[in-house]
Amino acid sequence: MTSNSCGTSRIAGCQFTLFPMSDKFADIILGALDEVDTSKVWKDTDDVSTCVRGKMVHVFDVTQALFLHAAKTGEHVAMSGTFSIGCPGDTEADSYMDETDTPLNEEKSSQISREAGCKFSLYPMGRTDYMDAIYEQIDLSKHRNIKVSSAHYATRLDGDVKDIFQALHQSFDRVQEKVSHVTMTFTISANSPSNKT
Amino acid sequence: MTSNSCGTSRIAGCQFTLFPMSDKFADIILGALDEVDTSKVWKDTDDVSTCVRGKMVHVFDVTQALFLHAAKTGEHVAMSGTFSIGCPGDTEADSYMDETDTPLNEEKSSQISREAGCKFSLYPMGRTDYMDAIYEQIDLSKHRNIKVSSAHYATRLDGDVKDIFQALHQSFDRVQEKVSHVTMTFTISANSPSNKT
Repeated sequence: MTSNSCGTSRIAGCQFTLFPMSDKFADIILGALDEVDTSKVWKDTDDVSTCVRGKMVHVFDVTQALFLHAAKTGEHVAMSGTFSIGCPGDTEADSYMDETDTPLNEEKSSQISREAGCKFSLYPMGRTDYMDAIYEQIDLSKHRNIKVSSAHYATRLDGDVKDIFQALHQSFDRVQEKVSHVTMTFTISANSPSNKT
Repeated sequence: MTSNSCGTSRIAGCQFTLFPMSDKFADIILGALDEVDTSKVWKDTDDVSTCVRGKMVHVFDVTQALFLHAAKTGEHVAMSGTFSIGCPGDTEADSYMDETDTPLNEEKSSQISREAGCKFSLYPMGRTDYMDAIYEQIDLSKHRNIKVSSAHYATRLDGDVKDIFQALHQSFDRVQEKVSHVTMTFTISANSPSNKT
């Protein structure tokens, strides 16, 4: 069913940007980076975005932790990005696949509770029946500890940041088990003043 | 070649968020919205993102204008989003397809010059040969008035905001001529302090 033209490695990655809507944006980003252990992922940052790559568990662990540590400042922060796995062009940094599976930031992250809203979209690539894979997964996400609603081109999740990232992780993981190359876009937002009105 | 399970309308859309990295983020967003004529697109906004839908020309005209008017404040601003066309579930707001093709914000936008960096990725859906469509298009974008480089999971464009949006528009348009359902993610950033160091 899948094209299987992808590399043998199941290296995952996320290209994302953290957006603190604050004059202190640089301090908030650097502060979050300082709190998060990124040693189990390959990482590259420029002025537009950050890319982390490695085992799926660590890619989600690091992106979640960065968002949580920025959100706990109480400032309005958002993060947008794209998770990817099985990209045919993607072979660099395979050495990070030798890391153990223990997430490095789970304990610290578990101590932070913060409500957020998130929109995400799953894109199973290289399949003519890709809509079935999307609909099947969107249906599954209804069972989790979060509010699920539909938006144009996206599914909306509301709840605790950790529950949202868990749903993103599970959705992505389930689709990539069936489809070799999958991408998933997301935008998550916390402490928005327009959410309080 | 394409699945052709899509609706008959070629309504395009963009789900995006404008991120001013400033304490004045609300004023900057509202100020940009005030400058931009969105009457030729369907529009819906919540605390996570904004969705505009209609003819492709107007979807690009409005998103570019919103970013330009926010960027001209001189504050560090970014925008992330996903353009989409031919989504099988997408039939609402078809009435906006009757609008004329003249973009409403072109004249005002042409008066704003601002350098930016942008990363984008094209996702032709429902095709087993989707990578060919991507590579073909990435090659074409080299001919435009912008600096093109490659990043993980994305292509990077540097130059004037209007040239960047023109390249995004042309790339998206060219792929959707061949592939029924196409999505394109982008993150564009202007006035970044880390770009000046």
